[in-house]
Amino acid sequence: MQKKQGKQSIVFAVPPYVTGTANIVGPMEGQGLLASYYDKIMEDTIGQHPSWEKCESFMLEWAVKEAVAKDSSQMDEIDYILAGDLLNQLMSTHFAMRSLGRPFLGLYGACSTLAEGLLLGSVLLDGGFGNKVAVGVSSHHDAAERQYRFPTEQGVQRPPISQWTVTGAAGTVLSLTGQGPRITVATVGKIVDLGIKDPNAMGPAMAPAAVDTLWQHIQDTGRQPAYYDMIYTGDLGRVGKKLVIQLMQEKGLDITANYEDCGCMIYRGEQDTQSGASGCASSGIVFTGYLYRQLQAGNLKKILLMGTGSLHSTTSYQQKESIPCIAHAVAIEAE
Amino acid sequence: MQKKQGKQSIVFAVPPYVTGTANIVGPMEGQGLLASYYDKIMEDTIGQHPSWEKCESFMLEWAVKEAVAKDSSQMDEIDYILAGDLLNQLMSTHFAMRSLGRPFLGLYGACSTLAEGLLLGSVLLDGGFGNKVAVGVSSHHDAAERQYRFPTEQGVQRPPISQWTVTGAAGTVLSLTGQGPRITVATVGKIVDLGIKDPNAMGPAMAPAAVDTLWQHIQDTGRQPAYYDMIYTGDLGRVGKKLVIQLMQEKGLDITANYEDCGCMIYRGEQDTQSGASGCASSGIVFTGYLYRQLQAGNLKKILLMGTGSLHSTTSYQQKESIPCIAHAVAIEAE
Repeated sequence: MQKKQGKQSIVFAVPPYVTGTANIVGPMEGQGLLASYYDKIMEDTIGQHPSWEKCESFMLEWAVKEAVAKDSSQMDEIDYILAGDLLNQLMSTHFAMRSLGRPFLGLYGACSTLAEGLLLGSVLLDGGFGNKVAVGVSSHHDAAERQYRFPTEQGVQRPPISQWTVTGAAGTVLSLTGQGPRITVATVGKIVDLGIKDPNAMGPAMAPAAVDTLWQHIQDTGRQPAYYDMIYTGDLGRVGKKLVIQLMQEKGLDITANYEDCGCMIYRGEQDTQSGASGCASSGIVFTGYLYRQLQAGNLKKILLMGTGSLHSTTSYQQKESIPCIAHAVAIEAE
Repeated sequence: MQKKQGKQSIVFAVPPYVTGTANIVGPMEGQGLLASYYDKIMEDTIGQHPSWEKCESFMLEWAVKEAVAKDSSQMDEIDYILAGDLLNQLMSTHFAMRSLGRPFLGLYGACSTLAEGLLLGSVLLDGGFGNKVAVGVSSHHDAAERQYRFPTEQGVQRPPISQWTVTGAAGTVLSLTGQGPRITVATVGKIVDLGIKDPNAMGPAMAPAAVDTLWQHIQDTGRQPAYYDMIYTGDLGRVGKKLVIQLMQEKGLDITANYEDCGCMIYRGEQDTQSGASGCASSGIVFTGYLYRQLQAGNLKKILLMGTGSLHSTTSYQQKESIPCIAHAVAIEAE
């Protein structure tokens, strides 16, 4: 049976269940709008660890283990782990995976990694290659800041368009059988690059990629935006979110009623994060916390989660290159 | 139908065909042992491009396009492209993908990326999610050297255990139908880290991961090493290769007769590459050139290709961490 639909979408024959989720965040996220939806809030951004990077690694390991525990599974029941983060060569992920001892496939999609992992995890299950997949993502403000921009301690003034990398990690277990919301459809993104070169302007850079994938999702599946209770992008922030609404309006579709960006849901206004949140953990902690509980409670029945990734590096920036972006979408539906 | 076999392996129900391969290399590889098996040999390592990184990106784009052309396909027949490289945030890959306009999934497995891509590409096809997948990998000596070690122009003396990153790119097209060798079985690796911290000693660091996956492949599938005409690891070099033979001997299996490392097949002794070749393109250019032709000609009928990845970063090295490694295996069999 051919499960591909249209140009970029997949309709799963046996939609995998999201059977367990967990997250862990830093103190700033723990003082934010969704504080009651996190499993663990750290007191600071380093804990007992010798570096921010190793703290991020600990968080990712913790989140995957906790998601497996919440699924009432043993780690050795997990057929594959798919995971990624923002650090060069996925440092947090690889060190987190050392202790887990499971077959592992590394992904790099920047902040689209959660959606990429849910998508490929669903492919593995629906394709008949296993019964359970764990997906893990993480990001860490202090580690990302010094890798991508300036020494974190320098406290460089941040422009209003900039976003704040979420310190956190998220784990999700997908199962071929079980109960709970299911991943029914996915749309795989293409690289979109409209020429933005400012690495502070990730929201505006990613917005066209999000619109490209959302538009293609609509074409491929015939599902209009109103099909979904809510459509979420991963980390466009306030500026990027406005652009998505505007670009969709130019295509004749009004999504103001049922569209939100995870990057606008995490911090309070007075937390001074400028345009909002970013990072793999932005969609990660929102999906595994607030959204998953809403789906379980029946408050949301059909959502489209769009991971958005800004695929630049410090090297590409130094070489005056623009920012290639991507967005992957997964439809998650409760019975 | 459950296609997982044993703890870490997959037996494909409809094994995908390898229907097109292409590669492009730098001048040093073009003077090496497999010179007649490359599609394009560059005159230098930068060409008309403003940086080594952008040259690598060009090479990857070229290799994927050429593989699609050799498959007699149009780019828009490719359902998904899976690709990755060694650079921070997959710089070469993302810039190469901009012009191709296909649904894209980014992978990071360091030098195991080819095997990871062939494996996940086969999962997508055998799972019913499409008809054609392209897999692309690249590495570039000059770009990798300055990212991982020292400024390339500095010409730091290299210890005998070190390896030379291959400058090259490889593209492969997998098809659900067609002719040619088929990917029949895959074994997904686990992270193995025995505590080696010297980033020059990647071969010895990766050897235990290769042995772990090879041993598990044997357990899962019941295929003894002699089942294969040849077993190839990706880039262990001469030192790592010896270790693999020794570690397998300790397990009671003699693989001296039918085991080779791609990293020992590329350069001539007098090319001063110390322990041999490394990089995503090491297994990439050997598989898409020499090995693919041998499979087509019937000189090889059953091979096991094991991509080996050294998953360290400069940050992890600076933080005194050891090197997590991984190996993924794919069995490729001609009719």
